[in-house]
Amino acid sequence: MPQISDRGKSMPASPIRKLVPYSEQAKRDGKKVYHLNIGQPDIPTPEVALEAIRNFDEKVIAYSHSAGNESYRKKLAGYYKSVGIDVDYTDLLITTGGSEALTFAFNSVMNPGDELIIPQPFYANYNAFANIVGVKIKPINATIKDGFALPPIEEFEKAITPKTKAILICNPNNPTGYLYSQEEIEQLGELAKKHDLYIFSDEVYREFCYDGHDHFSVMNLKGLEDNTILVDSVSKRYSACGVRIGAFVTKNKEVLATALKFAQSRLSPPSLGQVIGEASIDTPKEYFEEVYNEYIERRNYMVEALNKMEGVTCPMPKGAFYTITELPVDDTDKFCQWMLSDFSHKNQTVMMAPGSGFYEDAELGKQHVRIAYVLNKEDLTNAMEALEEGLKQYPGRTI
Amino acid sequence: MPQISDRGKSMPASPIRKLVPYSEQAKRDGKKVYHLNIGQPDIPTPEVALEAIRNFDEKVIAYSHSAGNESYRKKLAGYYKSVGIDVDYTDLLITTGGSEALTFAFNSVMNPGDELIIPQPFYANYNAFANIVGVKIKPINATIKDGFALPPIEEFEKAITPKTKAILICNPNNPTGYLYSQEEIEQLGELAKKHDLYIFSDEVYREFCYDGHDHFSVMNLKGLEDNTILVDSVSKRYSACGVRIGAFVTKNKEVLATALKFAQSRLSPPSLGQVIGEASIDTPKEYFEEVYNEYIERRNYMVEALNKMEGVTCPMPKGAFYTITELPVDDTDKFCQWMLSDFSHKNQTVMMAPGSGFYEDAELGKQHVRIAYVLNKEDLTNAMEALEEGLKQYPGRTI
Ligand SMILES: Cc1ncc(COP(=O)(O)O)c(C=O)c1O
Ligand SMILES: Cc1ncc(COP(=O)(O)O)c(C=O)c1O
Repeated sequence: MPQISDRGKSMPASPIRKLVPYSEQAKRDGKKVYHLNIGQPDIPTPEVALEAIRNFDEKVIAYSHSAGNESYRKKLAGYYKSVGIDVDYTDLLITTGGSEALTFAFNSVMNPGDELIIPQPFYANYNAFANIVGVKIKPINATIKDGFALPPIEEFEKAITPKTKAILICNPNNPTGYLYSQEEIEQLGELAKKHDLYIFSDEVYREFCYDGHDHFSVMNLKGLEDNTILVDSVSKRYSACGVRIGAFVTKNKEVLATALKFAQSRLSPPSLGQVIGEASIDTPKEYFEEVYNEYIERRNYMVEALNKMEGVTCPMPKGAFYTITELPVDDTDKFCQWMLSDFSHKNQTVMMAPGSGFYEDAELGKQHVRIAYVLNKEDLTNAMEALEEGLKQYPGRTI
Repeated sequence: MPQISDRGKSMPASPIRKLVPYSEQAKRDGKKVYHLNIGQPDIPTPEVALEAIRNFDEKVIAYSHSAGNESYRKKLAGYYKSVGIDVDYTDLLITTGGSEALTFAFNSVMNPGDELIIPQPFYANYNAFANIVGVKIKPINATIKDGFALPPIEEFEKAITPKTKAILICNPNNPTGYLYSQEEIEQLGELAKKHDLYIFSDEVYREFCYDGHDHFSVMNLKGLEDNTILVDSVSKRYSACGVRIGAFVTKNKEVLATALKFAQSRLSPPSLGQVIGEASIDTPKEYFEEVYNEYIERRNYMVEALNKMEGVTCPMPKGAFYTITELPVDDTDKFCQWMLSDFSHKNQTVMMAPGSGFYEDAELGKQHVRIAYVLNKEDLTNAMEALEEGLKQYPGRTI
């Protein structure tokens, strides 16, 4: 029997993969499982987008331009201008989700063996994309006691070697919910300039910034136009994860031309998704206000509920819809599994993502879980109640 | 300014990339350009599929399972059974086009530096996917005088080295239109068994087999269940190229589990495309009969018209909707450009794909063009007239 590839072997599985059979079993056993483990919001996709797809009236669903439909690219450039990012439609490619934009970035500028610096904890799939290209991730520790702020810039500088090609940030951050300040981004910009590195900025949660904090994009770093690559997505902005539409944005023409070659090899991004993406740009302001209010309410409720539990620490997230929370347990991999397999409260339980999957060094995440507040307040209330009860009963609790 | 990657540099551009500015200029000059250069059929997408998308009534366009919706996978397994391919829904993953299925295959079983044997001429993007993974293509020459039949099996065996991991075939073939016989596929199967190689079989044109010839899938090779990977797509079958839905099919459980890890990293295939894909399976038989008759008419007309032109050789394609044709010119790269930039007949001209892009050794394609008969008969007639006239006037003609 022929072999699979080395990269296939080293390809990391999703952080919740081991838990899936237990959650399926729990459901078969009739338990209600609250899914706080994934970033799939329950918020409806904007009506204007759904309407566009119901009115789809072309006779042939054809390939689009490999860079995406020109009409959509133009409208998307208009969206960026409206949020203070001054790009032309020729500075961007429509991609198959932010996921593909990330692989275009990695493939276009990094060689196998190159190093990529990322503050940790980080979005687990960065590991997967790095593995595919053969790139090594150098993590820099962000800590819960600092609310997962940007680690001191000296830590980044110390990690730079001749093989370092880029720094990757996610802003606002999945999994921590931290929103980097303009000052933090500018520090990174100076470092990137000094060492001629790329900055990949994953801004798929741009719209989710709370408490009056503004989002500062790397695209607004002066003098770094050739170094910055913006990764974007409509998945979270319009709660349209399934359309698989994102964007790759850079003012570096050589990088864009290179990414276009990768885009041409896969022919085109999804045509129906582009219909949704283009129509979504006309989503009325009220939609975002409602979504904002909804998330603020969920967040405030959840953070308070978590911090009230004995031994639990949850920093206040300033963006996105995640938090990394510290729990008084021996090992969150075990705890999360136990919650599904051995526990229920009023026949309900909670699925969370163990912290280990968000760290290069899994040990660092042993007391952490990522919780996504993507459920409505009522469900969230039941979920928090079940979690609190679970923490009291779990045999491996540390307090 | 930081550098782009080596793979970005060596990433092959599409075979028609250099021609695009000329075709755009021709259009600006008011010329009608007939596009015989790409595999984008003008056939309508089945009504049953368009209807499904117009009736889409979910409130949230959510991620699907990374392997695709279970309902669709089950229905797709039923489709395979109906065409004599006995697979279960657990033997397949829904992918973002056949393109992604190809990259899953390459990534799952090949290491950088490994070798992949492909009869040439071949689909140009195989080069791109090989480049991304760092795999070396070893081409085996098929010849126009044999109608691009499978080259002698000894040629394949001679090309095998310790680094050879797989043989890739496209059946029916893009760009040649050749349909491999059961005997040819079985020869390949024996060779793969003897040397424990994978066979990747790109069968995205399965429905396009003419003159009563049957399609024989590698999935029906006995005893090779662990060696065969089927790449499939709805793009051509239902003229739905833009939905970006394909499939990765194998009975090798380890390979499937590995491909699933790659699938998980990009989260999910397009949800709307899956709605189309699933509904398309109910396309009535009459649709395919009409499409079949349409292509047969186009093909017969075109092959006859081409062979009537002085010095032109076009084998009779048995499948797909392409032909590799030999033209009496010095260099088809130059000729195809000249047709766009310097020539018109009744203010019309033709865009074709120069043969060089389909060969590892571009020289071999110097007298060849790939023509896709994806236009209706009237357009095709005008296109053939323009081509004939062009061949008479072209300064670099060789007769
Ligand atoms: C930080 C981050 N980046 C990128 C993505 C990819 O999203 P998509 O491919 O749906 O655009 C996600 C999805 O959860 C994410 O959380
Ligand atoms: C031979 C072959 N394989 C694969 C593909 C990829 O098609 P898609 O990604 O649209 O399924 C094509 C498209 O033209 C093709 O011709």
